[in-house]
Amino acid sequence: MQGNTVNVRVVSPIITKGFRSLADLKALETPGVTVSHAEIDTGPASIESEFELAVSAPGTIAKVIEAERAGVDAVVIDCMGDPALRSSREVVTIPVLGPAQTGMHVASMLGHKFSVITVLRRLRASFENTATIAGLGTKLASVRSVDIPVLELERDLDRTKAALIEEAVIAVERDGAEALIFGCTGLMGCAGAVRDGLLKRGIDVPVVDPIPTAISIAAALVRSGLSHSKLTFPAPPAKELLGYADIRLEPRLAAE
Amino acid sequence: MQGNTVNVRVVSPIITKGFRSLADLKALETPGVTVSHAEIDTGPASIESEFELAVSAPGTIAKVIEAERAGVDAVVIDCMGDPALRSSREVVTIPVLGPAQTGMHVASMLGHKFSVITVLRRLRASFENTATIAGLGTKLASVRSVDIPVLELERDLDRTKAALIEEAVIAVERDGAEALIFGCTGLMGCAGAVRDGLLKRGIDVPVVDPIPTAISIAAALVRSGLSHSKLTFPAPPAKELLGYADIRLEPRLAAE
Amino acid sequence: MQGNTVNVRVVSPIITKGFRSLADLKALETPGVTVSHAEIDTGPASIESEFELAVSAPGTIAKVIEAERAGVDAVVIDCMGDPALRSSREVVTIPVLGPAQTGMHVASMLGHKFSVITVLRRLRASFENTATIAGLGTKLASVRSVDIPVLELERDLDRTKAALIEEAVIAVERDGAEALIFGCTGLMGCAGAVRDGLLKRGIDVPVVDPIPTAISIAAALVRSGLSHSKLTFPAPPAKELLGYADIRLEPRLAAE
Amino acid sequence: MQGNTVNVRVVSPIITKGFRSLADLKALETPGVTVSHAEIDTGPASIESEFELAVSAPGTIAKVIEAERAGVDAVVIDCMGDPALRSSREVVTIPVLGPAQTGMHVASMLGHKFSVITVLRRLRASFENTATIAGLGTKLASVRSVDIPVLELERDLDRTKAALIEEAVIAVERDGAEALIFGCTGLMGCAGAVRDGLLKRGIDVPVVDPIPTAISIAAALVRSGLSHSKLTFPAPPAKELLGYADIRLEPRLAAE
Amino acid sequence: MQGNTVNVRVVSPIITKGFRSLADLKALETPGVTVSHAEIDTGPASIESEFELAVSAPGTIAKVIEAERAGVDAVVIDCMGDPALRSSREVVTIPVLGPAQTGMHVASMLGHKFSVITVLRRLRASFENTATIAGLGTKLASVRSVDIPVLELERDLDRTKAALIEEAVIAVERDGAEALIFGCTGLMGCAGAVRDGLLKRGIDVPVVDPIPTAISIAAALVRSGLSHSKLTFPAPPAKELLGYADIRLEPRLAAE
Amino acid sequence: MQGNTVNVRVVSPIITKGFRSLADLKALETPGVTVSHAEIDTGPASIESEFELAVSAPGTIAKVIEAERAGVDAVVIDCMGDPALRSSREVVTIPVLGPAQTGMHVASMLGHKFSVITVLRRLRASFENTATIAGLGTKLASVRSVDIPVLELERDLDRTKAALIEEAVIAVERDGAEALIFGCTGLMGCAGAVRDGLLKRGIDVPVVDPIPTAISIAAALVRSGLSHSKLTFPAPPAKELLGYADIRLEPRLAAE
Repeated sequence: MQGNTVNVRVVSPIITKGFRSLADLKALETPGVTVSHAEIDTGPASIESEFELAVSAPGTIAKVIEAERAGVDAVVIDCMGDPALRSSREVVTIPVLGPAQTGMHVASMLGHKFSVITVLRRLRASFENTATIAGLGTKLASVRSVDIPVLELERDLDRTKAALIEEAVIAVERDGAEALIFGCTGLMGCAGAVRDGLLKRGIDVPVVDPIPTAISIAAALVRSGLSHSKLTFPAPPAKELLGYADIRLEPRLAAE
Repeated sequence: MQGNTVNVRVVSPIITKGFRSLADLKALETPGVTVSHAEIDTGPASIESEFELAVSAPGTIAKVIEAERAGVDAVVIDCMGDPALRSSREVVTIPVLGPAQTGMHVASMLGHKFSVITVLRRLRASFENTATIAGLGTKLASVRSVDIPVLELERDLDRTKAALIEEAVIAVERDGAEALIFGCTGLMGCAGAVRDGLLKRGIDVPVVDPIPTAISIAAALVRSGLSHSKLTFPAPPAKELLGYADIRLEPRLAAE
Repeated sequence: MQGNTVNVRVVSPIITKGFRSLADLKALETPGVTVSHAEIDTGPASIESEFELAVSAPGTIAKVIEAERAGVDAVVIDCMGDPALRSSREVVTIPVLGPAQTGMHVASMLGHKFSVITVLRRLRASFENTATIAGLGTKLASVRSVDIPVLELERDLDRTKAALIEEAVIAVERDGAEALIFGCTGLMGCAGAVRDGLLKRGIDVPVVDPIPTAISIAAALVRSGLSHSKLTFPAPPAKELLGYADIRLEPRLAAE
Repeated sequence: MQGNTVNVRVVSPIITKGFRSLADLKALETPGVTVSHAEIDTGPASIESEFELAVSAPGTIAKVIEAERAGVDAVVIDCMGDPALRSSREVVTIPVLGPAQTGMHVASMLGHKFSVITVLRRLRASFENTATIAGLGTKLASVRSVDIPVLELERDLDRTKAALIEEAVIAVERDGAEALIFGCTGLMGCAGAVRDGLLKRGIDVPVVDPIPTAISIAAALVRSGLSHSKLTFPAPPAKELLGYADIRLEPRLAAE
Repeated sequence: MQGNTVNVRVVSPIITKGFRSLADLKALETPGVTVSHAEIDTGPASIESEFELAVSAPGTIAKVIEAERAGVDAVVIDCMGDPALRSSREVVTIPVLGPAQTGMHVASMLGHKFSVITVLRRLRASFENTATIAGLGTKLASVRSVDIPVLELERDLDRTKAALIEEAVIAVERDGAEALIFGCTGLMGCAGAVRDGLLKRGIDVPVVDPIPTAISIAAALVRSGLSHSKLTFPAPPAKELLGYADIRLEPRLAAE
Repeated sequence: MQGNTVNVRVVSPIITKGFRSLADLKALETPGVTVSHAEIDTGPASIESEFELAVSAPGTIAKVIEAERAGVDAVVIDCMGDPALRSSREVVTIPVLGPAQTGMHVASMLGHKFSVITVLRRLRASFENTATIAGLGTKLASVRSVDIPVLELERDLDRTKAALIEEAVIAVERDGAEALIFGCTGLMGCAGAVRDGLLKRGIDVPVVDPIPTAISIAAALVRSGLSHSKLTFPAPPAKELLGYADIRLEPRLAAE
């Protein structure tokens, strides 16, 4: 921490410039917490598949290493697929948070069961696997989708919000969800509207907006002096690597 | 929030005055976060059994209601049995956190599996049940104990710390823990020493000190505009209650 | 046992006089088994929330201790929230049974999966947690409710029974239940009507009426010389307790 | 029930005459409960393998049908492999209990986790499967064995009891068992000695003797008017069957 | 293996001659793999209950022993109840495969979750138990049935296929299945039609036809030099057996 | 299939030439099955971390696409981390198998529980996650390691084999494994020696050598007309991708 301020870096694992505005992130700053931003240099335009998760990972790792070198205190990966979460934790010691893993744990603290409301049906298996690995398989009520691609979410924001509310109601009434979490970071900023829409229908459940929540939790971990386990995420052994010139591992790692 | 400050109230669910010092809690304040304290008026001297959890609950509920009326933003219950966590969430709308539930979710975010290092063997079933209900049964590596009663932990603090380190090493090497969490809030302040002791043995795992962590997470939830689900924890219906004059439910609850 | 008779005490953890009639309990006596009854002195009028479970516990503990001193052979707690089950087991050595835990195990012996048909939707999380802690999470098909408060169940008994049958049919046909259990001891006596109603629709599943079943099982445990584990439920250590004059722990506990 | 008496039939699924003495079973009778006995006509000398479970099943089914025709109220199968439990439940409507399934549910009611102490290591997978199907996989602490074949258990009963106590201690201290259950009905009658041996070592846990317990539970079910679900265990359709002349299904089954 | 050819024996555990045609099995032969067939001599006409599973087991064991003696390399049991799977593995060393267990593992390799489409609703519990014991309880989306008895499946094959497609669509759309497996080996040969029917509705999921798949997997195991574990399935001890003259265990087993 | 031959391609996801010899793979060919080989062009020298898994994935995807274009019938990824398994399944329709997922399912078919014997302790969490996602968390007895880096396994092959046997014995005797699977494809060819070593100690369990097994299973799937579910692994949507010139997705994918 510089002075008594926690600096959180949000890394967007896509190459689409302007998808995430710095102003929106700056609006999330709170006393003692600043937020900065980076996008990756190689990878996909958006992430809606396991393939895109795979090709977003190397660029994300590079940006996480860069963030630690720049003195940042914690990193939040800006995608609900949590790309490169485990791999980038190995190459740094500052906390790296995935919004899916973080949001699922937060939702589990707040309600009996939670549902994920995401963009496309095809992401269902991926979210169920994330929940299962997080140990939260029994807390996941369902994964529902509005069937709008990531890059079209903002095209008609009212339609997007209406679709979110509709799926959220079904998640609560049919699937037994008692808390909700957005399944795409492109939905950032919609939580208020969705919660209001649900309250109008008499449904009073928390709606977790993953990026703001992950930023707050990241700062909380830094304040508590906590980071991920180096027994779970030890530094990778030094060895030859072809084709990823932008990934520069710490020399100390080479010595181990 | 008053101004832009989050006020967190720590409620110690025991009647032993001075067990928790306000100074120790004040030392946990960070920019934008203040901490206050309360003890219960009726209940046990310390909590080491299900019986003591039961008789600490009504007094704790009274103090949680009082905290919300006093304008506090969030409450942290100061016992790893999370007494009155579910019941007190029903009677207020501000976030109420149990350090066991919170700490287990945080430990699960940081490492593959975690162990709880607690005071007495008799608490094992209780911690396993807490983990299971939190959905984290598969993340709990083991529950280990130093076999020192709560009120004697500070009698010989060096012995306590040495015993904690010893059990922590076994938890990692034999049980497969990759993160640790203290199983008694009376151990607050020992995390640094235990982490150092483990590092000396080449074991680099996070050691979650539940109260400081729960305070940070509570503030993070308030900053994110989140509280527990009112679908999971709806206000209790208004009805006759004998024998608990100190519990004054909101009149609005009576109207529902 | 006095002579060769097992004496089972039913403890109703509410203050509403006459909610449970002694005559109804006496009708459950069988050769070699007598049944007695007690109500608590402090606590709620009925139990429909975690809050009411919490404030019913101390009074229930007092009555369980009193039952053991009176020479009773086993206690059945008269509420499907199983209030004070774990805590009161610590303070006595005679078997203490909760109808929810007992009924769920019995239902699991009889059919592949079971559903709980209870009074209010708000109890769903509580029953799911009870099943999970009992180890029976995978056997619970669903928790369904008739949406009638406890103290109104007998106002229109025909309507109550019809609602029970309706939810039971859905539990079987939609949720996959192959056995049923009432989720409120206020429904005692309705099992025959519900089972008949289901048979008329061609559904032949057992309907567990929790209090009669728990009384029979309690007597069976006494006949088998079994009680709860003192390793799981050891006597609480002797220490100061404020505010519960009606709870008088055994002196022997103070000596341990 | 004849008069007000419950008649329980114990069916030993082996051909070894005298393995189970009627006198030992008669000693288990209690007010209102009588016990009778049958052995099978075709099958193995003892059961220590999946193969022997398979060849004991048809003969067991025949004896269960015979018991129902004789007016018996409930059947207990006398082997911890629960042979023919599911199949024989299909062909009768009176309760049929397996001592393994029953004993595991009873042990789970009494303590946090239980271990099975059985005769041979080769039975471990079978017991783990039984627990898993009963929904109790998370309650099973371990399966331990004394490595004495079934038909030699009584050759040196002191040695058998000593071996049981030794494994029981390990189950409690190393595996975390807080209740115990014998894994062979040939051990009937040893529970008192094992419990005493454990108490001498300061271990106070219930020791479930499966046959006496299953008889008591069977009578409790009859008293409660309960039997297994006919949705889970419907009568088999009428059809040709070669080679099992001793199995005579009810004519009513042929009509369905 | 004779020469370099793997010989797989399909054992149909029913007495209905011609239910399984050798020609259909011969059509499944591939380079280096031959298929032979046997039916049992004692047992049921078809298998639609736990009772029929029990009475098909001894005859199946006899035929598995016979197959090993005849020099066959692997056995596939021709029923989705996997009768005698565990018991017959004890008495031989060549691989014995059950199509249910095998098909469920294959389906789990291919898709996120699978459903079983079977003949009768009454088989649901049995399939759920099979999945649970295989460790695949969380991968099973649902068990659905067309409500056509085994011996009537071929009476109107178009109706059977249409019913299969209808249930398959529901399994995918409502239950979340992403792979399918037939729940009766009497449906052999319908996979192509069902897959085509699903593709016409835009559903592209694998349809596992259990017997052809189990034959291929059996040959793959033989090629890999693998068979079932003799620690899990040790030879049964030699002892007296009444009533099963057709089961001739290896003399070597008697010597152990 | 060309003619009636199944062509399986093994893709080694590392850049170390000669680590995998074509001759060793050719030795695994069987009647009707040919095996070919490819190494990746960009990525790590070996894989011993989540970081190396991430940087091996894009190159692996490129080689899987290339294999399908070359008319290969199935692909086996040559690393027990199953890198790019899910992502490469999205971009092709031929079966792609990971040896870890495949080997775990095969081991589960053969024995009650299995252990993974791998190279380094740091891989434990990864294997536990793989088992959990495969649905096999309850079948995994333990993950043990010989503490020899991948590229040093062949330096002293006798020492490697001795270490494997030693850990295997502990896995069986202490952890309850009843089947074994190597946790590194660099151990290919050691199964015979390990099985012999175990037999000498009286332990008769299958030892799964993952690459030969995965090749056989891949061929079996092709013979059965099966591939992975396109509902679980749909083609990724067409969109911009920077920095992976070697990955050429099918034009048809761009049109969707």
